[in-house]
Amino acid sequence: MSETPDNAVRTYIDRHRAAFLDDLVDWLRIPSVSAQPGHAADVRRSAEWLAAKLGETGFPTVEVWSTDGAPAVFAEWPAEDPSAPTVLVYGHHDVQPAAREDGWDSEPFEPVIRDGRLYARGAADDKGQVFFHTLGVRAHLAATGRAAPAVTLKLLVEGEEESGSPHFRALVEEHADRLAADVVIVSDTGMWSEDTPTVCTGMRGLAECEITLHGPEQDIHSGSFGGAVPNPVTEAARLVAALHDEQARVAVPGFYDGVVELSDRERALFAELPFDEEQWLRTARSTATRGEAGHTTLERIWARPTAEVNGMGGGYQGPGSKTIIPSSATVKLSFRLVAGQDPDHIEKAVRSWAADRLPAGIRHEITFGAATRPCLTPLEHPALQSLVRAMGRAFQQPVRFTREGGSGPAADLQDVLGAPVLFLGISVPSDGWHAPDEKVELDLLLKGVETAAYLWGELGDLRDPAESRRHAP
Amino acid sequence: MSETPDNAVRTYIDRHRAAFLDDLVDWLRIPSVSAQPGHAADVRRSAEWLAAKLGETGFPTVEVWSTDGAPAVFAEWPAEDPSAPTVLVYGHHDVQPAAREDGWDSEPFEPVIRDGRLYARGAADDKGQVFFHTLGVRAHLAATGRAAPAVTLKLLVEGEEESGSPHFRALVEEHADRLAADVVIVSDTGMWSEDTPTVCTGMRGLAECEITLHGPEQDIHSGSFGGAVPNPVTEAARLVAALHDEQARVAVPGFYDGVVELSDRERALFAELPFDEEQWLRTARSTATRGEAGHTTLERIWARPTAEVNGMGGGYQGPGSKTIIPSSATVKLSFRLVAGQDPDHIEKAVRSWAADRLPAGIRHEITFGAATRPCLTPLEHPALQSLVRAMGRAFQQPVRFTREGGSGPAADLQDVLGAPVLFLGISVPSDGWHAPDEKVELDLLLKGVETAAYLWGELGDLRDPAESRRHAP
Repeated sequence: MSETPDNAVRTYIDRHRAAFLDDLVDWLRIPSVSAQPGHAADVRRSAEWLAAKLGETGFPTVEVWSTDGAPAVFAEWPAEDPSAPTVLVYGHHDVQPAAREDGWDSEPFEPVIRDGRLYARGAADDKGQVFFHTLGVRAHLAATGRAAPAVTLKLLVEGEEESGSPHFRALVEEHADRLAADVVIVSDTGMWSEDTPTVCTGMRGLAECEITLHGPEQDIHSGSFGGAVPNPVTEAARLVAALHDEQARVAVPGFYDGVVELSDRERALFAELPFDEEQWLRTARSTATRGEAGHTTLERIWARPTAEVNGMGGGYQGPGSKTIIPSSATVKLSFRLVAGQDPDHIEKAVRSWAADRLPAGIRHEITFGAATRPCLTPLEHPALQSLVRAMGRAFQQPVRFTREGGSGPAADLQDVLGAPVLFLGISVPSDGWHAPDEKVELDLLLKGVETAAYLWGELGDLRDPAESRRHAP
Repeated sequence: MSETPDNAVRTYIDRHRAAFLDDLVDWLRIPSVSAQPGHAADVRRSAEWLAAKLGETGFPTVEVWSTDGAPAVFAEWPAEDPSAPTVLVYGHHDVQPAAREDGWDSEPFEPVIRDGRLYARGAADDKGQVFFHTLGVRAHLAATGRAAPAVTLKLLVEGEEESGSPHFRALVEEHADRLAADVVIVSDTGMWSEDTPTVCTGMRGLAECEITLHGPEQDIHSGSFGGAVPNPVTEAARLVAALHDEQARVAVPGFYDGVVELSDRERALFAELPFDEEQWLRTARSTATRGEAGHTTLERIWARPTAEVNGMGGGYQGPGSKTIIPSSATVKLSFRLVAGQDPDHIEKAVRSWAADRLPAGIRHEITFGAATRPCLTPLEHPALQSLVRAMGRAFQQPVRFTREGGSGPAADLQDVLGAPVLFLGISVPSDGWHAPDEKVELDLLLKGVETAAYLWGELGDLRDPAESRRHAP
């Protein structure tokens, strides 16, 4: 076998994998649980550990950025060619809470390797996936003989993702100049399965609101008044019932305005994925599917906007009964948004829909929280094609496409920086994010290293880096 | 003015009113709050006080009946004529909780008379209205020269009405032979207003249920699964929304089976009442009416069956938001029933309605509590006519007809004893039942005495006491 660049990358990775894993295990020992105030010092220690390691990796600039919450780590390694594209990698160094008694087979913060898997809280979400970029860039340099990467490489690793990234947008806005990039690579997702390497091309956005309905000034007797005045719980239920039509489409007028529909090619690509609906239902802890008519389950969760009620309450909820007409009711709704939908427009549409439906005698208030925009990179986007080529070289298999139904802080990077977002993740559904016995498959972790090693060359080869911007949604 | 029987009654009442009020004040000093365990001894003391007073009044038989909760008082005074009708008077000697700091102008258990009103907890609900029967029967005997009443008079005064009468049905069943009666007179209601004496002809029944819907086995992520599996809160809302049609009629198939519709005469009689909807809305703490098409507010609350949601909850109800598809939802429903409706039939109808509407993937359970049947005495019922004549003699005004929208333990008496239920109450809406500064109007209290004094003669004149039974609903 002749020495190709790919062989050189693999040889380098083989030679350094033991030290790479030792380092990762060290990092995983730090219980950087952002949701638990008692671990604040650990989260800071985790940031400092990473900053030191990125310095050792060779990044000329490494900084720990304070926020009003937990610190983030920023690193930058400029390309030699000033016209090379700039790439920003996003990840996070905080982890979900974990305790042995939750059902772990071993201590969550004492990493162990069993059967080719590394078990520890954060192994897949997200320390493992952040960390493969360190060996990845070293392998890229070793295999290409460069002193600096083929792209200007920036890393932003936040410390509050598991707490809802409350200060992330402000952080990105504050440092927008330092973070400026042609492409954002998010390494905080997964792929279809061990056997099916995939690239995620977008995430849904999110708009959330709470609607409170007021009827009588206080709870009143259902015998004396029942059947003769409006009941705010009934009206809240009618609003929720009216959210969808009989086709399970969202019935708020204007909700679908601007929605980028799936192309025939995208639908065909979704359909090619080895999707087992029974298996999926088990993951959903559900016994039947239900959703928008004319769409498959994958289309529904990845590419269609939705309305869900996340919580609802009003009147008496204790044991037994209480014969009242309740004074008020509250509904919490969330809307998943897809490319082309504008959260401000959705807010306006929901406000007028609710106002139009409520009868005399019912007063209401609606509060919207901060929205997250959807992100979607078209299949033909050159940067996405670069990522697919890099992953294909690492996995030596065809790479397929997925999307992510959830919503994440990556959308803030897209928004503030105006750059398209690509997703490079090697985690698989069995990795147990947020669950006991979280693990990462070592083979896949090293494929992540290898993909990163190829990716900077692939992106550096883009003739016109500005092209990416023109394709941003 | 010649000495008519009515003059004789009035003279007797005038002569004894001071002692009557002193006694009532004594009784009102006993804080017989059945809902507060610390007052259990007071509730027993109240029963014993009443038993002693009924003995002094002349009832040959007086007993304190124990229950698994608070004691009831039973008294019986047989008519001399063994073929005379038997009448059972129902009331209660327990009261709602009360404390000066709730907004009372004087101590709730230190009765005071101001401006012709007696202020105390229990003054109207229900001690005052029970107690007018003591002076009433004495005035009846004095004015007619009888040694025993013209009817066999029984009293049953329970001690747990303000706690939902949990042991009342069992008590009535246990003592059904002793309580047997041709007519039941409930003195625990009111009349239209100070200026408008009325007789209530019925109460609505009540069926209550709780429906729990189960979707995913646990809360699941609305990003990963939203839009593709059924949401139990959405389905609960759809059930509630489907309870009524666009005419605000209850849409459960079979719900109206057997309903005794209002006659044109009854509707006309309701319409003659001086009803002020704006005033009623203030009492309802509401700003608009809403109810079954084709019916007035009074018809809706008195004579039409209803479905109300009393409480509902599911998913996240804390501050902020949580992007989940909730695992379950619960709905508490109550149905007010009118004459002709059968609670067992309603339960069956609701069960199949719910089962038919819920989609695959949603499991549900329905629990029904003990139901209360409706009671209604037809306008032409001879015993009702006797009551109207007695009240007309006392008030010297035309007596009109009302109904009661709520439901009460009187229905148990109707059920177990098979006797029609009539309502003799002199309380008015401003009396403040369950509220601070509860009071009774002394003039009306004495009209209650007077009505009772005439009523036993009127009922004793009924040619065929069994006639009442033939008119029972």
